[in-house]
Amino acid sequence: MEEKCTNVCQNHLTAVGDALYVIGGKWKLRIIIALKDGHNRFNDLQRTITGISAKVLSTELKDLEMNGFVKRTVHTGTPVIVEYELTGYSDTLHEVLSALGNWGTMHREKIRAER
Amino acid sequence: MEEKCTNVCQNHLTAVGDALYVIGGKWKLRIIIALKDGHNRFNDLQRTITGISAKVLSTELKDLEMNGFVKRTVHTGTPVIVEYELTGYSDTLHEVLSALGNWGTMHREKIRAER
Repeated sequence: MEEKCTNVCQNHLTAVGDALYVIGGKWKLRIIIALKDGHNRFNDLQRTITGISAKVLSTELKDLEMNGFVKRTVHTGTPVIVEYELTGYSDTLHEVLSALGNWGTMHREKIRAER
Repeated sequence: MEEKCTNVCQNHLTAVGDALYVIGGKWKLRIIIALKDGHNRFNDLQRTITGISAKVLSTELKDLEMNGFVKRTVHTGTPVIVEYELTGYSDTLHEVLSALGNWGTMHREKIRAER
């Protein structure tokens, strides 16, 4: 009889599941990296993140705003200017972003070395 | 004129993009956590990872095998038994798994506290 998932395993599955539910997907973490680098206008963000469509960027920004990572400010001058900036809560992602970045760099070097 | 993405930003975008391409998505990291806990038969894996269908589990296991995280062994007795186990390369994901787990736990506590 296979054993049930240990508590440690179940807790880890739940925690990683929660994280992926909020910050998973192809684009959210990349938008946060681009915002961290000071790209806070829509078109600038879209240019910075290769391959993202305007529709997807708009949806992901709304999600990030709803989950408290991004603040959207509308400057009502002429022309109207919309700016996006990271909230303090996005700083909590530092460890995740650095772990994924380190791993991606290592993986790319491994693939290159195997060629 | 908006500035171009700095090198640091571009490298980080590329590295995180590479990582998400290989280990992104809803299920791959959870399958690795379940395998790490000793669940190495197909049905046992499917029971352990809430919500995953047999079809998706099968596809994800093939991807993980192709990318060198999982080894599939067929024991040709009667009945035939198929077992999955993690390769050494999956250990490189330790930092990513722990960062995501920590963040997910923290995020759930924050949400609970806000209620």
